[in-house]
Amino acid sequence: MSLLIKGGTIVTHEESYQADLLCDGNLIVEIGQNLTPPEDAEIIDASGKLIMPGGIDPHTHMQLPFMGTVAKDDFASGTVAALAGGTTSIIDFVIPNPQQSLLEAYHQWRGWAEKSHANYSFHVAITWWDDSVGTEMENLVKNHGVNSFKHFMAYKNAIMATDDILVSSFTKCLELGAIPTVHAENGELVYHLQNKMVSQGITGPEGHPLSRPSSVEGEAANRAISIANTLGAPIYLVHVSTEEAVDAIRYAKDHGHTVFGEVLAGHLTVDDSVYQNTDWETAAAHVMSPPFRPKHHQDALWKGVQGGTLQTTATDHCAFCVEQKSMGKDDFSKIPNGTAGVEERMMVLWEKGVNEGKITPNEFVALTSTNTAKIFNLYPRKGCIRVGADADLVIWNPSASKVLSAKTHQSNIEHSIFEGMEINGIPETTICNGKLAWHEGKLLAKSGEGQYIDRPAYAPFYEALTKRQELNQPKAVNR
Amino acid sequence: MSLLIKGGTIVTHEESYQADLLCDGNLIVEIGQNLTPPEDAEIIDASGKLIMPGGIDPHTHMQLPFMGTVAKDDFASGTVAALAGGTTSIIDFVIPNPQQSLLEAYHQWRGWAEKSHANYSFHVAITWWDDSVGTEMENLVKNHGVNSFKHFMAYKNAIMATDDILVSSFTKCLELGAIPTVHAENGELVYHLQNKMVSQGITGPEGHPLSRPSSVEGEAANRAISIANTLGAPIYLVHVSTEEAVDAIRYAKDHGHTVFGEVLAGHLTVDDSVYQNTDWETAAAHVMSPPFRPKHHQDALWKGVQGGTLQTTATDHCAFCVEQKSMGKDDFSKIPNGTAGVEERMMVLWEKGVNEGKITPNEFVALTSTNTAKIFNLYPRKGCIRVGADADLVIWNPSASKVLSAKTHQSNIEHSIFEGMEINGIPETTICNGKLAWHEGKLLAKSGEGQYIDRPAYAPFYEALTKRQELNQPKAVNR
Amino acid sequence: MSLLIKGGTIVTHEESYQADLLCDGNLIVEIGQNLTPPEDAEIIDASGKLIMPGGIDPHTHMQLPFMGTVAKDDFASGTVAALAGGTTSIIDFVIPNPQQSLLEAYHQWRGWAEKSHANYSFHVAITWWDDSVGTEMENLVKNHGVNSFKHFMAYKNAIMATDDILVSSFTKCLELGAIPTVHAENGELVYHLQNKMVSQGITGPEGHPLSRPSSVEGEAANRAISIANTLGAPIYLVHVSTEEAVDAIRYAKDHGHTVFGEVLAGHLTVDDSVYQNTDWETAAAHVMSPPFRPKHHQDALWKGVQGGTLQTTATDHCAFCVEQKSMGKDDFSKIPNGTAGVEERMMVLWEKGVNEGKITPNEFVALTSTNTAKIFNLYPRKGCIRVGADADLVIWNPSASKVLSAKTHQSNIEHSIFEGMEINGIPETTICNGKLAWHEGKLLAKSGEGQYIDRPAYAPFYEALTKRQELNQPKAVNR
Amino acid sequence: MSLLIKGGTIVTHEESYQADLLCDGNLIVEIGQNLTPPEDAEIIDASGKLIMPGGIDPHTHMQLPFMGTVAKDDFASGTVAALAGGTTSIIDFVIPNPQQSLLEAYHQWRGWAEKSHANYSFHVAITWWDDSVGTEMENLVKNHGVNSFKHFMAYKNAIMATDDILVSSFTKCLELGAIPTVHAENGELVYHLQNKMVSQGITGPEGHPLSRPSSVEGEAANRAISIANTLGAPIYLVHVSTEEAVDAIRYAKDHGHTVFGEVLAGHLTVDDSVYQNTDWETAAAHVMSPPFRPKHHQDALWKGVQGGTLQTTATDHCAFCVEQKSMGKDDFSKIPNGTAGVEERMMVLWEKGVNEGKITPNEFVALTSTNTAKIFNLYPRKGCIRVGADADLVIWNPSASKVLSAKTHQSNIEHSIFEGMEINGIPETTICNGKLAWHEGKLLAKSGEGQYIDRPAYAPFYEALTKRQELNQPKAVNR
Ligand SMILES: [Zn+2]
Ligand SMILES: [Zn+2]
Ligand SMILES: [Zn+2]
Ligand SMILES: [Zn+2]
Ligand SMILES: [Zn+2]
Ligand SMILES: [Zn+2]
Ligand SMILES: [Zn+2]
Ligand SMILES: [Zn+2]
Repeated sequence: MSLLIKGGTIVTHEESYQADLLCDGNLIVEIGQNLTPPEDAEIIDASGKLIMPGGIDPHTHMQLPFMGTVAKDDFASGTVAALAGGTTSIIDFVIPNPQQSLLEAYHQWRGWAEKSHANYSFHVAITWWDDSVGTEMENLVKNHGVNSFKHFMAYKNAIMATDDILVSSFTKCLELGAIPTVHAENGELVYHLQNKMVSQGITGPEGHPLSRPSSVEGEAANRAISIANTLGAPIYLVHVSTEEAVDAIRYAKDHGHTVFGEVLAGHLTVDDSVYQNTDWETAAAHVMSPPFRPKHHQDALWKGVQGGTLQTTATDHCAFCVEQKSMGKDDFSKIPNGTAGVEERMMVLWEKGVNEGKITPNEFVALTSTNTAKIFNLYPRKGCIRVGADADLVIWNPSASKVLSAKTHQSNIEHSIFEGMEINGIPETTICNGKLAWHEGKLLAKSGEGQYIDRPAYAPFYEALTKRQELNQPKAVNR
Repeated sequence: MSLLIKGGTIVTHEESYQADLLCDGNLIVEIGQNLTPPEDAEIIDASGKLIMPGGIDPHTHMQLPFMGTVAKDDFASGTVAALAGGTTSIIDFVIPNPQQSLLEAYHQWRGWAEKSHANYSFHVAITWWDDSVGTEMENLVKNHGVNSFKHFMAYKNAIMATDDILVSSFTKCLELGAIPTVHAENGELVYHLQNKMVSQGITGPEGHPLSRPSSVEGEAANRAISIANTLGAPIYLVHVSTEEAVDAIRYAKDHGHTVFGEVLAGHLTVDDSVYQNTDWETAAAHVMSPPFRPKHHQDALWKGVQGGTLQTTATDHCAFCVEQKSMGKDDFSKIPNGTAGVEERMMVLWEKGVNEGKITPNEFVALTSTNTAKIFNLYPRKGCIRVGADADLVIWNPSASKVLSAKTHQSNIEHSIFEGMEINGIPETTICNGKLAWHEGKLLAKSGEGQYIDRPAYAPFYEALTKRQELNQPKAVNR
Repeated sequence: MSLLIKGGTIVTHEESYQADLLCDGNLIVEIGQNLTPPEDAEIIDASGKLIMPGGIDPHTHMQLPFMGTVAKDDFASGTVAALAGGTTSIIDFVIPNPQQSLLEAYHQWRGWAEKSHANYSFHVAITWWDDSVGTEMENLVKNHGVNSFKHFMAYKNAIMATDDILVSSFTKCLELGAIPTVHAENGELVYHLQNKMVSQGITGPEGHPLSRPSSVEGEAANRAISIANTLGAPIYLVHVSTEEAVDAIRYAKDHGHTVFGEVLAGHLTVDDSVYQNTDWETAAAHVMSPPFRPKHHQDALWKGVQGGTLQTTATDHCAFCVEQKSMGKDDFSKIPNGTAGVEERMMVLWEKGVNEGKITPNEFVALTSTNTAKIFNLYPRKGCIRVGADADLVIWNPSASKVLSAKTHQSNIEHSIFEGMEINGIPETTICNGKLAWHEGKLLAKSGEGQYIDRPAYAPFYEALTKRQELNQPKAVNR
Repeated sequence: MSLLIKGGTIVTHEESYQADLLCDGNLIVEIGQNLTPPEDAEIIDASGKLIMPGGIDPHTHMQLPFMGTVAKDDFASGTVAALAGGTTSIIDFVIPNPQQSLLEAYHQWRGWAEKSHANYSFHVAITWWDDSVGTEMENLVKNHGVNSFKHFMAYKNAIMATDDILVSSFTKCLELGAIPTVHAENGELVYHLQNKMVSQGITGPEGHPLSRPSSVEGEAANRAISIANTLGAPIYLVHVSTEEAVDAIRYAKDHGHTVFGEVLAGHLTVDDSVYQNTDWETAAAHVMSPPFRPKHHQDALWKGVQGGTLQTTATDHCAFCVEQKSMGKDDFSKIPNGTAGVEERMMVLWEKGVNEGKITPNEFVALTSTNTAKIFNLYPRKGCIRVGADADLVIWNPSASKVLSAKTHQSNIEHSIFEGMEINGIPETTICNGKLAWHEGKLLAKSGEGQYIDRPAYAPFYEALTKRQELNQPKAVNR
């Protein structure tokens, strides 16, 4: 069965134009004026609406196992939230325990994800190192469609990757044509400051941002970038939340390095006053890492988005409910880190970006979909609207409005960090793999219809990196 | 008659893939695997070669009237040089005399350009101001396909635009959805330094760079950008040649402003040692403004290209022969300013950019064609390879080599600033408006086959500018 | 008669130590432990207090003639305010009318200043240019103790110095060993925006900041600096009020140039919300140029102070009363520009700088006195405490407090921009030329006791500038 | 016996003036015009010469134990070299072995230093951590005149301080009013790159810079600064050799942090081409860490000096002879790191700084002496010329010349990194502790006459740090 979208304005990362669009199977098969619907075609009227590539959220943690419990949004509910918000693909994280086989963990996560309603792919975290890890990285790249590896520079005594691990893993990434990514916070400083806060009797959620000031992120961002640059590897920074980290990326880009930055919808719009809330539950609902920041960082992040320093938007969707959060009632460092957002990301970016004149609708598409597809080498299969591309689309109604609230969101948790935000311009229909997945406020996709997305190595930016590596081979002096 | 290009690799600003490509009329009509040639089709074998969008040089001065003489390359010979180098479109400059009607000048230039072999469009210079100039700008934008206006911040006592003119013209550009462009050099300082050099007996070509140090450009770049930003207008800087100007653009972009920068192939690769040449003729052959710079500026320009601060490449092709240059035999300030380059631009950028690992082939396409098309609102008609786009193409042989020389270039002048540079990877076939225009070392295009290119106002970046303007309306306080 | 200060802590720009201090005539004659008072000595007990160099305010406009009226604080009342606040010297401005002889204007101002209670010196403004201006500059430097010349880059159609004037005057300054200073705002933009605001019906004081946005200052700052750098001249920016201007100075300093920046106590602590005050009189009382700024600029200014980008603090004291301000009742551009502050400057800097941990007491001295003395070549006669230096001192009580208010200030006007600010640490005794000038809340100095301060050319920073100029002489190529 | 210096020009960090100067005991006792010599006074004629504070080299390693051998210049010969070059004090390093008591190591070094001809003090290195280290730091600060602690971020598997050690030690420094200093290179990257080079067969001295690229220093500089800033501690970076590190310091200073930078005479003037020397011995003679750098870094370092980003100059004098260097004949990583320079530092800075118009003579004094005295809290006992200060002086002849060479230097090693440099302006007489120590080319000081210099904690810059710490105490939210 085919699907014809009529009368809308197609908006890509580069241009906007009126055209009809025909999907067949899971592909876009025709774009043009006044297309004649095939006999079996379902027809969607998109008059006055925008047809954009479905969102790709490159940073979610569905069903994350944590402290004997598991994040409340699993791959089923989490991808429903995604579809409700116009997002058709997520890139989640396989996080092996230290000493655990990467492949084993990878297959665990693949299993959990089978119930997804939307498409998914996986970054794999490097939480420890010996030669076998390098071998498994190669296996994942060559045989399992993984082209990115994640490194946590925080979480000492758990999954923290120290500099020696970063050096080994980044070197291997370069060898494989993959891209290393980092959660950039200096784990030693966080550890020190957490202990200091608790020892000073600061045990509430306000201790969370106090133990993770912006300099802690700036340092780690710069370190990861410097290590990658020194080795000749590309690098991608997840959830950039501070002026310092923006500056670090900018400095590197301005010196010719291949560095990418991701920003969360939350960091762009929520500030650290939330931790002063006298309601513990509300304050704790905002505990995530990096924390929300003093307001001037938001300005730096938006400037980073506008100037091209930050290329992608994500959510770090990792949903813990009130009961789970209360594990840290007496010690903020025990509050499970995470907030929801996969549903709201695109709406928030539209409202605060497009409607405020910070970005154009084309840039909105680039930031919510295309750039992620390019960096993680899914383009032009994903992230664009053209004949032959995957039919992952969102139909956006720029004239409709809604107010975001936990009461109406799809996530399984009781709080929303965007509670009460009014949105003008909302996703009305989401098409995933050529089929209506969310339409007129209803879920049409079925659990299991989401597809795993293979991501090949050697994204286009590697072409210059490889050339440079050849040219910069060290040479011995003849004596 | 149609044209089928078989077996090549299509390289756009975003991706590279193997496909056949069929042109019909002046358009690309089909792209696909193993296309069947129409009966009448001419077939070009592109095996092992790259098919890229034809180059767009956004900065040339063909046939420029100057001091009673005229630049040696007219629109006929100049566009032959363009086609020989893979460039299928130029944007030249209409430069009215102060007090001359813009329309009158525009029609003069249109007349001269009718003999072009390649496509052409025009920026129009604002060299004076009264209300009639604003009215003519509107006419040019609404009725003549002009969406950019040029301002010379140097050339005191001639065509220099002082701040009051910049303010008036930029304001009008914003009103019209056009983009102001500037030649950024502080004219008062240049004037002062020229007089100083001559009064100190420095009359040779070495006086040229001494009277136009990099700070003179940096100042003007920053001033033009600041004026534009203050007014809410976009701005485009032509021939950025210094670290200071790169920094000024970067600063503005990093603060969320809409600023674009162009760099010349010459400034990327030639340094100011040329003015120390003891052969006057050779030194004088390099006199252009801004002058070639100390070597560290090249590094800054390349970094600007890599980091996204500079988006387009051009040549400022303005060819004066030895005899013309000798007008300044006794006073460097009388040497006609200008060098050739429209033929060599893409080759130089391939050799020094792609072959040195500074940019990828996709970035090469963006820098030589796509970005210019986007900024000047020609995209996706120009600057891309897709069905429905203009069939302006270059077939690039990455395995062939040549040495650049005035002996073999198409320009009518005796010197080449790229003399002796070895190029690995050269344009072999240029297709303009769907027809072979340059092939196997021969010109096939005919004079007059070049088309005038209309450029509509309100390029996509205007969408955010307009929104911001609305939101930032000043408001009176009620008292 | 001599004066012995006992038991205090001497605080200089470099160190703090306990010592007694003996003044005789107008000089400091002895510093040491337990000094024996001469027979005739007056003795001041400074136990628990700090003895610091008297403040130098390098930017005041006493008795400024303006629109047929004259600023309310003349050299008599203005210097009383200075002494009450611990400031013992001011550098005021001679502002010739265009076409007026500089010498003539200089002598006018010298005459007006004879009634001063505190010491004074003069910058002379360059408001027009022909060769005679250069000749008079030489006369002023060689015979009248002037080593600095001021340039207004704003005030079109009045005293604005266009680029050609800047080039001529800066060149002459360099020749004379003097330092050019600038009021940096782009006059064309201000003029355009004033007209725009008024034409849009925005005639109240809120139109003032709208017509002088921060980019207008940033542009001019960068331009003045670039012109000076290009010519090899030093430069001093008065009343730096924006992040952009701080960045411009920093950029130049980081590139090895000799650039100095002054900041006003007002810009460090007052923000632009004052122009939204619905009381016209209060809003108008804050009209000065550059205007007060959005709050984030204050942060940039403090960072500039801390990092060494800004070296001096001033006030631009130019006092207009309510009646005078009301000249602009119907058009903000006619409100006389100016606010008071010479009395409050040091207290404000102590409270917001020292008490907030932004600067040390030694840095406080450098910022309020020593740095100004060095830049304007008064050091070590002024700006330091040592045997042989002028006995201009302030005795500071770090334990006493007061609340700033127009009700209690010395200025003749009805408003204070610091109204209500609580100060912890205040000047109690001011000694000028070796005599008690302000003590226990009373004025002891007499009108006419203030001395004119000669400032010799060629401050120490000139030593490197001169050497560089020699080494960078342009050279002709032998052909 | 007293010493009268007649007819010279006194040059301090702030001013230059003609005066006679009388020393008695180890102090300056009188400064004035035409001083009458005491009866017993030795008289030095300084006509036409400059009298400056004796140099302080804050970074030497005399007699450093290394790999079973010991640096060739011990405290006796090394301080002779210092005096010959106008340097009267050094700050050397106590480097405990991991697990060794700090006090024990301190006393070892104190013993070795007793034979010094010039004055000396000690930084103490933190090479490991447990609570006892913190306790010994306190003992050193309170009882032994130590106010600075050094941390090596390189030298993995030896004395490298990892982030947890930095955090613990910086915290302790802050508690004690001491200043942490760092050798900033990322030890993991160095280790990785050393192994890589050797495994690729690059075993000669050219492997040294290849294994320590500038990004390795930039990263560590930024990390140390960020950690210090996060904790609220000041920080001092030794031997800053790269643009990246200069940028890191600048960034921090521009954000209000208390950061200091030291630069070596060698890094300012020697570039990395030395490692390409085909004579192994010569190449190896230049092996030190950080290595000499590509030329553009020199420009950045000078700009850092001029703009105030770098405050002190040093040498890292650590002299290994040819025989010792040959330990690394087959593996560059085994070449003892170090070069001489304590004798040449001031001459090099005069020639390349003052004579090239980069700095004034006053800035020269600041950079060679005063700033170091201030940062390490020796001022005004050292680093200045005033009555009561230590009589550590150098008499500089700006008209005399010499050529630097290992043939004539005082160091015990066979190579000089400054070989052949012509110096115009040389130290002729060095006075240490009030006595002629070097005069007319001869050593007059005796071994053992050098004094240990106590350095008290809480340098003046601590005043603001302490205040800020109080104000920034974290606060719990009442719930
Ligand atoms: Zn994370
Ligand atoms: Zn995450
Ligand atoms: Zn031009
Ligand atoms: Zn041009
Ligand atoms: Zn002013
Ligand atoms: Zn003023
Ligand atoms: Zn070191
Ligand atoms: Zn060392």
